[in-house]
Amino acid sequence: MSNPSLLILPGDGIGPEVMTEVTKIIDWYGAKGGLKFDVTMDLVGGCAYDKHGTPLTDETMAKAQDVDAVLLGAVGGPKYDNLDFSVKPERGLLRLRKEMDLYANLRPAQCFDALADFSSLKKDVVAGLDLMIVRELTAGVYFGEPRGIFEEGNERVGINTQRYTESEIDRVARSAFELARKRDNKVTSVEKANVMESGILWREVVQKVRDEDYPDVELNHMYADNCAMQLVRAPKQFDVIVTDNLFGDILSDCAAMLTGSLGMLPSASLGAPMANGRPKALYEPVHGSAPDIAGQGKANPIACILSFAMALRYSFDQGAEATRLEQAVEKVLADGLRTADLLGEEGVKPVSTSEMGDAIVAAL
Amino acid sequence: MSNPSLLILPGDGIGPEVMTEVTKIIDWYGAKGGLKFDVTMDLVGGCAYDKHGTPLTDETMAKAQDVDAVLLGAVGGPKYDNLDFSVKPERGLLRLRKEMDLYANLRPAQCFDALADFSSLKKDVVAGLDLMIVRELTAGVYFGEPRGIFEEGNERVGINTQRYTESEIDRVARSAFELARKRDNKVTSVEKANVMESGILWREVVQKVRDEDYPDVELNHMYADNCAMQLVRAPKQFDVIVTDNLFGDILSDCAAMLTGSLGMLPSASLGAPMANGRPKALYEPVHGSAPDIAGQGKANPIACILSFAMALRYSFDQGAEATRLEQAVEKVLADGLRTADLLGEEGVKPVSTSEMGDAIVAAL
Ligand SMILES: CC(C)[C@H](C(=O)O)[C@@H](O)C(=O)O
Ligand SMILES: CC(C)[C@H](C(=O)O)[C@@H](O)C(=O)O
Repeated sequence: MSNPSLLILPGDGIGPEVMTEVTKIIDWYGAKGGLKFDVTMDLVGGCAYDKHGTPLTDETMAKAQDVDAVLLGAVGGPKYDNLDFSVKPERGLLRLRKEMDLYANLRPAQCFDALADFSSLKKDVVAGLDLMIVRELTAGVYFGEPRGIFEEGNERVGINTQRYTESEIDRVARSAFELARKRDNKVTSVEKANVMESGILWREVVQKVRDEDYPDVELNHMYADNCAMQLVRAPKQFDVIVTDNLFGDILSDCAAMLTGSLGMLPSASLGAPMANGRPKALYEPVHGSAPDIAGQGKANPIACILSFAMALRYSFDQGAEATRLEQAVEKVLADGLRTADLLGEEGVKPVSTSEMGDAIVAAL
Repeated sequence: MSNPSLLILPGDGIGPEVMTEVTKIIDWYGAKGGLKFDVTMDLVGGCAYDKHGTPLTDETMAKAQDVDAVLLGAVGGPKYDNLDFSVKPERGLLRLRKEMDLYANLRPAQCFDALADFSSLKKDVVAGLDLMIVRELTAGVYFGEPRGIFEEGNERVGINTQRYTESEIDRVARSAFELARKRDNKVTSVEKANVMESGILWREVVQKVRDEDYPDVELNHMYADNCAMQLVRAPKQFDVIVTDNLFGDILSDCAAMLTGSLGMLPSASLGAPMANGRPKALYEPVHGSAPDIAGQGKANPIACILSFAMALRYSFDQGAEATRLEQAVEKVLADGLRTADLLGEEGVKPVSTSEMGDAIVAAL
């Protein structure tokens, strides 16, 4: 049997440097952990545009469809701000999500004990926080048509379309309920059904899936504005939050920041099972490309490393190894090692991106 | 010359009880402050539906168009959750906003010194916080067509349309720049131009208004997800935030919660000047109808009272009186008076809704 295959797309900004640390982990698993991967590297985002005039070539897209999992660093940067919309770095990422049909984006927001003091929130509000946002990733206003800037009378109008079919809502709701069963069995579904008809349909379908197939899971519904508030007020009330693409974008960033550890948070984007039973999958840190600190050894590689832990768990059925890697990260933090984004407390040891990666490998 | 006119729409839930306290303030101004208002009361939201089968009658709508300012309490409640979309309580409020063309919704998020400990955020992150969100209120996905739930093949699809014309963006941008000039001269414009064409047009028009007519105001652009993060991480970096209807809904609730004083935050919704030079205007607290505590004397009337202070400032050119009222509120807080939403600290004096109102009148 051949080794499981990985496509690594480091992308822009700090993407390449954090991904370098992930490859150390992958190498360790190959050499010592008895888990060998076939790894291919390629370009996505601004760097792909620089080389090929497009943020994602058809060849790279085909490779992504072909592998067992994709690991992505980050895309974008001010250098590309004035590019035409159709070739912006983000379009490469959005094309991957759409064509791989990665409809369920799992974004855990977890507060690491060693870092609870680092949040802008009071310690008792966030200590022990462990919630999971399941964001729909292939539909909604991100992809709805019509879209564009049009002439209308004497002026222009910018239009985007929020669009959800029943089946698009149904499948992501199932992902959320399945996850909840492995956690605290509680799902909060988030929309603006008081203002948007698409939210009314969302609420109705999620409720139906729950009533028909997950009666054991607690479900409640919340408006997106209230959810933003509740995340700030008392985030520990949540277990799994399921929401659409745009609300998920905003709320997951808000949740990530609560933990004080943006550089720590991974994500998994999952689609339907492939022929080999593994889901289509892409793993990436929640943080962006942080061009202001790129190339300075300041970036925190942990989010990207924990994204690989999610790959072990969700793509390769290696839950025990995922936990081992997560514990290695916790140990290194407990030892006081901190990259530049996490400095400020007394008695910690500042380390560079690569020193952090090396320490995690050593802890494995 | 006749007195300035007010239409009071207490609405649902805690709306009536907080509005009762505002009428005490209005009475005080009539009797002692030398500012008489002609006041009319009417129904909006669920209570209007109960009586008339619609959340806002044409007669009430006509009155709102006719007065100098509308004061609104809150609308909605679980009793109305299963009503048809077209007659939900929220539709009454949305109709007022749309037909009065109240395009600029001003939502200050201010952390009161006496309450800085009450935030879920660390005191140094929020103490002294004073930012203003200017939310576009008459367009975007709240009102765009097409909208609805449609059949498509074998299933239904929920559709809403995000839609902004250049002139809709232009006028709210001007409101934001005008406000910034009276504050710290800094505007952050928020959209998702990396994903939505409507965001690209938004960014372009805001920049153009700045370059042509407000070159003295500092302008920067931020994505909505990042803004949610930055609000949690370091809210004091902001002065004025200008954003669209939906992002404004979510981000202003997030900002409100940072201050720990949701029951304290007012809002003003302003349109074009009327024949008498006053802007079309509606004032309402940021909090909702809180049906769970309605009728128990637990509601905090301060948000509604401070909304009246905004009316004094923006509709009636009584900035000094607005400040006097705001100082009366601060004094009462400094004296330790707290409604039920603000209990928890040592040494404070719990008071009911009406005791709070009385104390503020006494402090005037
Ligand atoms: C980079 C951008 C297109 C993307 C999004 O908006 O989805 C990012 O913010 C994210 O959350 O993954
Ligand atoms: C009640 C609701 C329609 C309203 C909105 O979504 O605008 C509210 O949340 C607000 O922010 O004023």
